[in-house]
Amino acid sequence: MAFFLRTACRTFVRSSAVYVNQSSICTSAGIKAAWNLGKLNHVAIAVPDLEKASKMYRDVLGAKVSEPVPLPEHGVSTVFIELGNTKLELLHPLGEKSPIQSFLDKKPGGGLHHLCIEVDNINEAVKDLKEHNIRTLSPEPRIGAHNKPIMFLHPKDCGGVLVELEEA
Amino acid sequence: MAFFLRTACRTFVRSSAVYVNQSSICTSAGIKAAWNLGKLNHVAIAVPDLEKASKMYRDVLGAKVSEPVPLPEHGVSTVFIELGNTKLELLHPLGEKSPIQSFLDKKPGGGLHHLCIEVDNINEAVKDLKEHNIRTLSPEPRIGAHNKPIMFLHPKDCGGVLVELEEA
Repeated sequence: MAFFLRTACRTFVRSSAVYVNQSSICTSAGIKAAWNLGKLNHVAIAVPDLEKASKMYRDVLGAKVSEPVPLPEHGVSTVFIELGNTKLELLHPLGEKSPIQSFLDKKPGGGLHHLCIEVDNINEAVKDLKEHNIRTLSPEPRIGAHNKPIMFLHPKDCGGVLVELEEA
Repeated sequence: MAFFLRTACRTFVRSSAVYVNQSSICTSAGIKAAWNLGKLNHVAIAVPDLEKASKMYRDVLGAKVSEPVPLPEHGVSTVFIELGNTKLELLHPLGEKSPIQSFLDKKPGGGLHHLCIEVDNINEAVKDLKEHNIRTLSPEPRIGAHNKPIMFLHPKDCGGVLVELEEA
């Protein structure tokens, strides 16, 4: 019941844009939110040298670092860095039409590329966000690098941050 | 014992720069690592409009968002966004010598500013990182916005990413 009330509050918040503290108890009857934001799945970092960056995180910082994983269908090679509560993902261009090449053209030394936050229902999330005038980078969700449905939101509608939503 | 062996492996990794999978068992005798990397404490996002960004995360994405917290000694106002496993921290300049003003001068729309990763011993971490030629942004750790010792590492030595270490 507590969960129901909390999500009911959130539906109200979204539709009215009036601040309601999520931790307070909402006493009004409401409809369960059609979607919920979840955990930070990963922070993506574009790097010009995948081996050098992997060594820094593994050999200097002592993190648990994967071998490179080529994802040609997404135009990247990825290295996963486990931090206990979430992951960093190093991205390096793969192929000629890599989606991160333009980022590295502007920032040749690499840098923070995007955040990926989980949602429990990507279709409802996208529908709701479009109603709030948040632009998406593709018309519909597609299957992402983790074989789950994803959607990228326009950085200009998210405080300058490229946000990826992934259905958990 | 498993912990001791794992950290012994990591000491070996750091000093030799030879890849050893952390999940494997290290049978050689070793010294316990003087420090260990921990969780992602937060991702910091510089924003030109704190209220607008707070509303987006709270009212559109449905996240749990704090009231603004002024931290004049750090030259920022901060809003904390809880994501379950970690936090986002929105940063807005406060006062005339804010450390994030130059970032917003270059990126007026805001953007991803830095990562903060926890360590269990900041002094040993800094000592070790300096030996690996990772530059720090101050000579010694100082007390950060969470009243814990912190140190910022130079982005040029961390794949273009401004990394903050915080003693957990």
